[in-house]
Amino acid sequence: MSVVVSTAQTQSYWASIDAEIDAYLKKSIPIRSPEAVFEPMHHLTFAAPRTTAAALCVAACELVGGDRDQAMAAAAAIHLMHAAAYTHEHLPLTDRPRPRPGIQHKYNPNIELLTGDGIIPFGLELLARSVGPARSNPDKVLRVIVEITRATGSQGMVDGQYQELGLDRLGSEYDVIEYVCKKKEGELHACGAACGAILGGGAEEEIESLRRFGLYAGTVQGIQGKRRPD
Amino acid sequence: MSVVVSTAQTQSYWASIDAEIDAYLKKSIPIRSPEAVFEPMHHLTFAAPRTTAAALCVAACELVGGDRDQAMAAAAAIHLMHAAAYTHEHLPLTDRPRPRPGIQHKYNPNIELLTGDGIIPFGLELLARSVGPARSNPDKVLRVIVEITRATGSQGMVDGQYQELGLDRLGSEYDVIEYVCKKKEGELHACGAACGAILGGGAEEEIESLRRFGLYAGTVQGIQGKRRPD
Repeated sequence: MSVVVSTAQTQSYWASIDAEIDAYLKKSIPIRSPEAVFEPMHHLTFAAPRTTAAALCVAACELVGGDRDQAMAAAAAIHLMHAAAYTHEHLPLTDRPRPRPGIQHKYNPNIELLTGDGIIPFGLELLARSVGPARSNPDKVLRVIVEITRATGSQGMVDGQYQELGLDRLGSEYDVIEYVCKKKEGELHACGAACGAILGGGAEEEIESLRRFGLYAGTVQGIQGKRRPD
Repeated sequence: MSVVVSTAQTQSYWASIDAEIDAYLKKSIPIRSPEAVFEPMHHLTFAAPRTTAAALCVAACELVGGDRDQAMAAAAAIHLMHAAAYTHEHLPLTDRPRPRPGIQHKYNPNIELLTGDGIIPFGLELLARSVGPARSNPDKVLRVIVEITRATGSQGMVDGQYQELGLDRLGSEYDVIEYVCKKKEGELHACGAACGAILGGGAEEEIESLRRFGLYAGTVQGIQGKRRPD
């Protein structure tokens, strides 16, 4: 019985974090002028599936004793970087003959390309603007910007996308799947957990142990996701 | 005669800035592992035409009494954001039937898409890492990150690209050209000049007057460029 209660409590904890991140994102991306730019940005931000890496950022912040508010901009930035990557992964390029299933294209490819290009700097702008007396200090925010740009850039998520597209074959099919899941999901979750711990004022050991937890949890989640039909 | 000397001096001043930005970029993007990711990143960074917005950042920093080194990471970030936009503008998408002239595609579209996606966070990572006792303070660097993400994001360069592609028609052809040049070149130069002045320790009036100069110079340069065959 206690297990049931605990599971329900855990689910409602994560659901409450997701709801707060969503509310923060909705407030941050009003549909303003130029509408032709912001309406797709709003739509594609919420069309991407939620990543638990963003929620993990908030949970890690609270775990080390920080306030939820301190991690909200970083969690939003992580979701935005993930949403931009998701949008670009589903772009119909001339050398991607197979349509990826399960996604409705509301906009034409030019708009989806440019919207992704706008979402990336917007996520980092949100984060850079999140400094304030009641919130985080500039050194922590800069450290978090470095964490997020690395995890989502050429040595992180982009490297995983290369492998996934078979642009740079590593080895056996299983090796590739493991590498892709580590780079795309593992390192994003590691980054989320580390950023939350940094912003919440965690000690270096706490930051590194939450990073390891995130890497493991994200990689396993990615591998489990691969078992389901796409 | 003095005019000739002065022109030659001016040219060598700008050439020396360009050479330093190039050297900084070359040092910052070594061809390292994974090579399949970093080799195209290196190539596409230097394949994009130079933007004077990056050089203006360094010149503005020196003009307000700062050292060239203080503006180098921001100038490199401005070039990288411009190079990513240039790469994505030339992507062969399925709804861009006309090939854009004047560009050689060394890589396939998937690689060009992902490389642009990697260059954007890398530019901002470079900037976020540029804080140091001998260099800039964190508040200035965060302010510059906000400037660059805004100028290159949905309210700046991306908005100009929308208009250029005719995705959201504004008015007469001339209105569109002027708007596109203001958003794509004008605001990037305004941002470059303002960032240089911020990092060099300029007063608020100096920052705003250099921003106005950059907006004007960049917009005019853009309009003049439109007169030449593409």
